[in-house]
Amino acid sequence: MDSAALLDLLGNENRRRILRLLARKPCYVTEISEYIGVSPKAVIEHLRKLEEAGLIESHVDDQRRKYFHIARNVRLEVTVSPYGFASKSAYPTNNSFDISTCRHLTLDVACDELDELDELLGALEELEQLENELSLAQRWVQSQLYDVLDQISETVGAGPESRIYADLLATVRTEPKSVGELGRELDAPREVIAELLESMADEGIVQRTERGWELTTNG
Amino acid sequence: MDSAALLDLLGNENRRRILRLLARKPCYVTEISEYIGVSPKAVIEHLRKLEEAGLIESHVDDQRRKYFHIARNVRLEVTVSPYGFASKSAYPTNNSFDISTCRHLTLDVACDELDELDELLGALEELEQLENELSLAQRWVQSQLYDVLDQISETVGAGPESRIYADLLATVRTEPKSVGELGRELDAPREVIAELLESMADEGIVQRTERGWELTTNG
Repeated sequence: MDSAALLDLLGNENRRRILRLLARKPCYVTEISEYIGVSPKAVIEHLRKLEEAGLIESHVDDQRRKYFHIARNVRLEVTVSPYGFASKSAYPTNNSFDISTCRHLTLDVACDELDELDELLGALEELEQLENELSLAQRWVQSQLYDVLDQISETVGAGPESRIYADLLATVRTEPKSVGELGRELDAPREVIAELLESMADEGIVQRTERGWELTTNG
Repeated sequence: MDSAALLDLLGNENRRRILRLLARKPCYVTEISEYIGVSPKAVIEHLRKLEEAGLIESHVDDQRRKYFHIARNVRLEVTVSPYGFASKSAYPTNNSFDISTCRHLTLDVACDELDELDELLGALEELEQLENELSLAQRWVQSQLYDVLDQISETVGAGPESRIYADLLATVRTEPKSVGELGRELDAPREVIAELLESMADEGIVQRTERGWELTTNG
């Protein structure tokens, strides 16, 4: 599911209350309607949207009553800042993902070969702590990113449009690029890219060579 | 800003498009209206909501034209799963946050004392990689959490309500608790807690002692 569809679904307080309820236990329509104080008709409409998106599923019990439950694990992250608006949604990675391939990150948590209930509960506690630490780390990284972008902005003198300057500079940093390549990579019109490059060339920050545009500090 | 208010704001495609536009550069109403193909009146209403929430701000330039820009760094995380629905929003942590206090997490990234543009761009690249690795790690942790909760569920035999069983067991794991204490900690009615504990006592998973309810494996 893409993050836009997920944000549309989650942008409704009653749908969030339904999800919160279903995360505690499977429910049928009347139960949900009474719990959140919304007509069964409106509940059915919310459930239809959630079901179409694959977020919830239903099953019928012995009394032929239809119960809804959450079907999927999904995670959404949104960052809003003067330097960007980004949202991404993803399903939890399966176990075959190798965390040791991370270059800047090491995790220390034991969650293999757990047999006893006590070990499982211990692992649950550790994982919840780690989840919290990862959130804190994300916020720290965001703050560092803004600092670095602010400093780049000061160096380049680009003001509030500095994010696109920084993206441009980061893109030409490792290898020289043409205006066309930069336009495609940054999803911006060629004229905009060309204008930005010319103004940075005037400042002596970038230069055009036979290989394309590059940082003058590389020269 | 709480995550519910943020989700309400972000649950609208046109507001997301406005934020995406403003993250690139400050804009005035007519510009936004033309860019996203929505009437100026509707744009003004979206801007009002975003401004009231503190997400955007405006300033007036020399030609007395009112420009809007993103005012805040804010981060939102949402997790939906059969075991829970959780959302949290937070501002980036300032630099005084000490990442070394994390128990399960180590970061390896250099972003201190950067002077040259080339160093800044290098740090930007490292931080963006780390941001990506942290996202992957979060998804991995989610997947591990579900595995552990599934295993607890199998052990306890609680079916789809196992999240509340797991929370209960995790809460009594480290020290015995009374029904009243558990009700307050888990934000659930006393009767529900008492019933769950009795059923787990029948299974021999927990026991009531003079000090309160505790895991039988501790005994």
